[in-house]
Amino acid sequence: MIPRYTPADIAELWAPKAQYEAWFDVELAGCEAMESAGLVPRGVAARLAPLRDRLSPDRIDEIERTTHHDVIAFLTHLEEIGGPDARWLHRGMTSSDVLDSATALRLTRASDRMLARFGPIYTALRRHIEAHRRTPCMGRSHGIFAEPLSYGMVLAGHLAEFQRAERRLRAARTEIAVGKLAGAVGSYAHLSPAIEAEALAKLGLAPETVSTQVVARDRHAALISALALTAAAVERFATNVRHGQRSEVGEVSEAFSAGQKGSSAMPHKRNPILSENLCGLARIARAYVTPALENIALWYERDISHSSVERLMLPDVTATVAFALDRTARLLDGLVVKAEAMRRNLEAAKGLWASEALLLALVEKGCGRQEAYVWVQRNAMQAFHGEGEFKPLLLADADIRKHLDEAAIERAFSLEHALQHVDAVIDRALGDHS
Amino acid sequence: MIPRYTPADIAELWAPKAQYEAWFDVELAGCEAMESAGLVPRGVAARLAPLRDRLSPDRIDEIERTTHHDVIAFLTHLEEIGGPDARWLHRGMTSSDVLDSATALRLTRASDRMLARFGPIYTALRRHIEAHRRTPCMGRSHGIFAEPLSYGMVLAGHLAEFQRAERRLRAARTEIAVGKLAGAVGSYAHLSPAIEAEALAKLGLAPETVSTQVVARDRHAALISALALTAAAVERFATNVRHGQRSEVGEVSEAFSAGQKGSSAMPHKRNPILSENLCGLARIARAYVTPALENIALWYERDISHSSVERLMLPDVTATVAFALDRTARLLDGLVVKAEAMRRNLEAAKGLWASEALLLALVEKGCGRQEAYVWVQRNAMQAFHGEGEFKPLLLADADIRKHLDEAAIERAFSLEHALQHVDAVIDRALGDHS
Amino acid sequence: MIPRYTPADIAELWAPKAQYEAWFDVELAGCEAMESAGLVPRGVAARLAPLRDRLSPDRIDEIERTTHHDVIAFLTHLEEIGGPDARWLHRGMTSSDVLDSATALRLTRASDRMLARFGPIYTALRRHIEAHRRTPCMGRSHGIFAEPLSYGMVLAGHLAEFQRAERRLRAARTEIAVGKLAGAVGSYAHLSPAIEAEALAKLGLAPETVSTQVVARDRHAALISALALTAAAVERFATNVRHGQRSEVGEVSEAFSAGQKGSSAMPHKRNPILSENLCGLARIARAYVTPALENIALWYERDISHSSVERLMLPDVTATVAFALDRTARLLDGLVVKAEAMRRNLEAAKGLWASEALLLALVEKGCGRQEAYVWVQRNAMQAFHGEGEFKPLLLADADIRKHLDEAAIERAFSLEHALQHVDAVIDRALGDHS
Amino acid sequence: MIPRYTPADIAELWAPKAQYEAWFDVELAGCEAMESAGLVPRGVAARLAPLRDRLSPDRIDEIERTTHHDVIAFLTHLEEIGGPDARWLHRGMTSSDVLDSATALRLTRASDRMLARFGPIYTALRRHIEAHRRTPCMGRSHGIFAEPLSYGMVLAGHLAEFQRAERRLRAARTEIAVGKLAGAVGSYAHLSPAIEAEALAKLGLAPETVSTQVVARDRHAALISALALTAAAVERFATNVRHGQRSEVGEVSEAFSAGQKGSSAMPHKRNPILSENLCGLARIARAYVTPALENIALWYERDISHSSVERLMLPDVTATVAFALDRTARLLDGLVVKAEAMRRNLEAAKGLWASEALLLALVEKGCGRQEAYVWVQRNAMQAFHGEGEFKPLLLADADIRKHLDEAAIERAFSLEHALQHVDAVIDRALGDHS
Repeated sequence: MIPRYTPADIAELWAPKAQYEAWFDVELAGCEAMESAGLVPRGVAARLAPLRDRLSPDRIDEIERTTHHDVIAFLTHLEEIGGPDARWLHRGMTSSDVLDSATALRLTRASDRMLARFGPIYTALRRHIEAHRRTPCMGRSHGIFAEPLSYGMVLAGHLAEFQRAERRLRAARTEIAVGKLAGAVGSYAHLSPAIEAEALAKLGLAPETVSTQVVARDRHAALISALALTAAAVERFATNVRHGQRSEVGEVSEAFSAGQKGSSAMPHKRNPILSENLCGLARIARAYVTPALENIALWYERDISHSSVERLMLPDVTATVAFALDRTARLLDGLVVKAEAMRRNLEAAKGLWASEALLLALVEKGCGRQEAYVWVQRNAMQAFHGEGEFKPLLLADADIRKHLDEAAIERAFSLEHALQHVDAVIDRALGDHS
Repeated sequence: MIPRYTPADIAELWAPKAQYEAWFDVELAGCEAMESAGLVPRGVAARLAPLRDRLSPDRIDEIERTTHHDVIAFLTHLEEIGGPDARWLHRGMTSSDVLDSATALRLTRASDRMLARFGPIYTALRRHIEAHRRTPCMGRSHGIFAEPLSYGMVLAGHLAEFQRAERRLRAARTEIAVGKLAGAVGSYAHLSPAIEAEALAKLGLAPETVSTQVVARDRHAALISALALTAAAVERFATNVRHGQRSEVGEVSEAFSAGQKGSSAMPHKRNPILSENLCGLARIARAYVTPALENIALWYERDISHSSVERLMLPDVTATVAFALDRTARLLDGLVVKAEAMRRNLEAAKGLWASEALLLALVEKGCGRQEAYVWVQRNAMQAFHGEGEFKPLLLADADIRKHLDEAAIERAFSLEHALQHVDAVIDRALGDHS
Repeated sequence: MIPRYTPADIAELWAPKAQYEAWFDVELAGCEAMESAGLVPRGVAARLAPLRDRLSPDRIDEIERTTHHDVIAFLTHLEEIGGPDARWLHRGMTSSDVLDSATALRLTRASDRMLARFGPIYTALRRHIEAHRRTPCMGRSHGIFAEPLSYGMVLAGHLAEFQRAERRLRAARTEIAVGKLAGAVGSYAHLSPAIEAEALAKLGLAPETVSTQVVARDRHAALISALALTAAAVERFATNVRHGQRSEVGEVSEAFSAGQKGSSAMPHKRNPILSENLCGLARIARAYVTPALENIALWYERDISHSSVERLMLPDVTATVAFALDRTARLLDGLVVKAEAMRRNLEAAKGLWASEALLLALVEKGCGRQEAYVWVQRNAMQAFHGEGEFKPLLLADADIRKHLDEAAIERAFSLEHALQHVDAVIDRALGDHS
Repeated sequence: MIPRYTPADIAELWAPKAQYEAWFDVELAGCEAMESAGLVPRGVAARLAPLRDRLSPDRIDEIERTTHHDVIAFLTHLEEIGGPDARWLHRGMTSSDVLDSATALRLTRASDRMLARFGPIYTALRRHIEAHRRTPCMGRSHGIFAEPLSYGMVLAGHLAEFQRAERRLRAARTEIAVGKLAGAVGSYAHLSPAIEAEALAKLGLAPETVSTQVVARDRHAALISALALTAAAVERFATNVRHGQRSEVGEVSEAFSAGQKGSSAMPHKRNPILSENLCGLARIARAYVTPALENIALWYERDISHSSVERLMLPDVTATVAFALDRTARLLDGLVVKAEAMRRNLEAAKGLWASEALLLALVEKGCGRQEAYVWVQRNAMQAFHGEGEFKPLLLADADIRKHLDEAAIERAFSLEHALQHVDAVIDRALGDHS
């Protein structure tokens, strides 16, 4: 988590202050539930509640330098500032009750904040999609001109992928909104399922089905996987922008702000640096899936090997993905779509994209598929090598003309026909509100 | 996919025969839908259907050595054995229509076959859970004795994790059951959404929301992620068996079949080789998440870089996870649980696990938490170092006795009390039928 | 390891036959060394040597189905075919002495076979480099036209990278050429360092510095890392070919064999499928680094979790990288370099690449760098947007002309000048014979 | 890079101040070399040199918020504080000349600082090795008692592995000590190989063989791989400490400082938290190998996707590995080795570890290996199940006694004999000074 790639609302979430507040919220919720259960005298929780505003991260750190144990340092601090009432906190609880429930709180919030970031992406995508429903552009497979489609349809494919990413993230958010107040080995030796349920409900969390000392780490790995898939959706879009902005293609362009300089050496350059940056960030997000998976098989009721991983990974991956989503929204918002360049590239394909339509027309007239393929390919290759134009070559090909008249050949070159179904496809993506 | 780690039903799925049959199924479903739409003469599909039993993988391979293109080789073979009718196949379709829909068919089947493997795991787990609901065993955190719990509860935690893995796999199965018949760039230039919908419905597949030349690869990556999480559930269980079978622990043991030899050098050895093997297989399953994620950002309407990855990955990962689930079921089925050894290890803890109960009892009597901690710890450390027994030491500690009488100290050592909530926890896992 | 991506010489190495022969070679070398040491009667090894040709993988598999232990099955088979002499084999050895030394033998051979594959790559690269030392082409950063360089220089960069890959693989080959005959826990309880040294020397292997039950797995991970780096060298080259073959670029092309078909639907297509395939294979090679690293931290003197990983990984990764190197050599050998297309694209850059030279010329005349930047950029931008040609615009720019005369402006557009140092760079790569 | 896991000397290296100083060092070295070459007036570099102490990271950041380009912001700042002389800086250079050479400077320093950390590890290891050359302990394979070895030998294995890690890191350090001053596409359009060589030599760097716009990224990936292998050496050692400190084993223990608290709930606990933490850190280090490999295949002469990865990865991975090495040294330094506990566990093995010696003795007397195996195993199993002691059982076994007398059986149980070669093995590791 470096400032350059960390949105403020995510930075705030992982700051020491927010951490200790989340710990406090768990302790207080536990204390309130124990009051209900008669394990803690009435009134304690209410008297302790104001301590939340007096937490001192610096003082806690100072104590930890002696205890080498963060939660004990935190509790010691609470005794310092809260007096005798504070001894009722953490009753029957283990450190992980606090840590894991507080992590669940923060990851749930981080998930919510990430989910909220899909909206601006959808808005920008929908705007471009509507504007370019029928903007023809060349489809490419293997980087080679294939058949035409509309740029709105290209973006609809990205919209659909972001929507799938959001759905997965939403499922992972449900899985991660799980805490525990179940004690040292999850057996509620000094607590009870009822106390836990009441305390966690106050925090908007569900209880872990069966805790060990900790909440199960497959939940965290499922979240990281969903984030990596989200980053991959970003990466695919960013990759396509990078291709589109290439000098030779020039079909789309990132916005270029006033004052921005593309190169210290070459003043004319306008580089797709947001998109390139997003591809790098996707690598980072992806990199955390494996350690998250490795964190699952803790020994017996837990070992603490997962902790160092999470201290680095959870802020980094949430910051990186949130930042990437913001940047994607900004990239999309400013995206310059050049319909004329798309048309120009389409024309550079010399109509070769009509070859499949011709093939089909020949087959319909009774030609064998492989035979038709040969006839069409020989003309395509000639045109491809600059030895004539495709359509005139076809009109002059005796084998082909035996089966197709001029009108039939013309029809194969109709863009209108090629794009007849793109509206249906686009509507499918736009209508997906799940 | 090596024979040693490949269940027969998964091997069969990825054999060339099954591949070409799946391709054929897609082509035929497409042909039938085109008949309905009037694009193909009536009766063609019915006449072609029997070709399915005459497909020759060897002949197709032979043709591919010339064409360097597998689907063209397949179609050429169909023209060879099917005569003129065969030219109606693949009309308006692109290779990926066949390949991706057929892959969806096979991955859907593979998913179903993996989902069916959870049943035997649950059965064996439930049997052991019921048998050991109240079998006390020592809980360990950091590998160090912590507090007691029941072995049934330990297994209930694994049950809950497998159930979560199954739920994720079920969601991924829905995501992967998606094909396409949308042509070269997904625009239905020579087909229609209606034809696609009809053809895919025959195959039990839904249409891709917005295709490019291919079905979007985030779907595949989501499946691989779900499989890696499944393998991680296996790994955590296997890791715990490995710990339990250690010479110094001896609480559980893999079944040892007659004739099996543990070591070529040491005849007395009984090694947890199934569990160790499962840990290795989890590494393999996990390794495929990254290439699956890297496969997503294909260039423009597609490039074929994903293909080589999938040829290796899809058979390997499905075989590995299916095999791991089978082996887990077998391991669980034969798992020897040694309640006496668990009891013996519990006793070796010298009652130190009661320290938290003592701490709480002191706090309830009005002691400060940190003060009480110091009193209990000094006795615990003495007992830990073999300088006396814990309970007598406590009874003789003046500070403690100022607050706790003998009965209160005795209560802290009650196993009955320590396990009072394990039934509730276990029932939570057993009741999860979602 | 699937036939499609497995060179014959690597397949042969991992076949059961080669495995059992390697095991036999280790056993026999051990037996010979024990004869020298007087632990085994003279003549035994010589009498056993011919068994190598009578090994029956099928029979060994059959025995393993009872013993569940592969090395014991192998030894049982040797007793069957070798009679009483065979009992002298494996004396004091543990299974891993055989397995790990044999794996070292096979990985050493695999490394040698991979190292031999760099030669054809260098040959093809050198040929193209010499042919295109001075073939100007546009350099691109961020996909945007930057400054000119020569295509020979581009390829020299790939040559240098392959040479680094080879050097790392050579170092890893030395690290992996290490076996052990040190018994169950590496202590030579029933053997001796001298016997081990003699036996391993016969096999061309060095002894592990300190064995546990096994040879240390960091050696294997170092090899896999070197292979992943090799695959990355392939990937960078293949990525550049894919860019170069794009319809809009057309500067290079994979060879297209007679009979090959690019697309089942579009007869005109010539796709860079070798290069795309190589990018996928690099993902596979890379995927194995993590499990190889995870295999290192075996428990105590070993656990067998590494074994399942290696059974899948070692054949797969060696086959994949060897195949990728072969394919790279073939791709390079047939690579079509289109100097005219390079020239055409260079011209499409409208001389904007001269902007840096202009900037420098202005600075040399005493202008401030930022000021000069603004002057050059305004003309570059105008030319970039099609509002005039760059050179005439510059000649007409009053600010610039205050400092630069016509000749100075012309000089900035000299290709000759731009490429003046490429020979020196190329020679640096060609001269690297380390 | 979080403060908790970042050593001061690594933090300092990645601070903005150090970054801009490194940039300045590169620019100045370039300026000096250009003075030698006559491209820059004499005296400029000397006049600019003092600017190094006046660099203001805050001001540079402020400028970057307008330019969106870090190097341009840096140069603008230099013009602000350096006046007209500053325009001679960066002449003919591209941003990456500065960035990549400066990164090489910092990675070289980071490597040196990491290499220096092996010393304390070796010192502590050597001390323990000498102290425990002959301290017998039970070797375990599969977690099951195998045969005895000495604890000094166990540690010698770790020493050898750290030495291999160091050697790989040293090779990677050489590979990464490479910069470039070759301009926008590596062609020295406005510079020369001679200027580059002189400038880089001042910085202790070699020139990239063939640059693109950047130094090749396989160099960085090779470094990260070497760091991941280093972390894996740490992980294997830490894993073994975790096993050794388990309650049931108790053979080694991390030092427990005064005031430290093991658990907020259980005062008696002493947890191997350093070792567990190190295992987590190894996961983090390992996670960066894949993005480093993905960074290699930049498009054409470069794209900037690697940059975001490196901004996060390079500080994180160097901090994590340096911290892990420090912590390993500290763990080793304070490691408590309990020779009596090792002896006690050895005795718990009931002499079953002698079984292989017995097997060999029988084979030497002419028994068939498989027959002898059966005889020994039946007694081993009986002893293992507590039905008698191993040695007496053997002495009473008629089949065995037909071949072995009492003395021969006694000999198999000799620890002295079992450890006869450990000194030779240990000396091999200690003598490795390469």
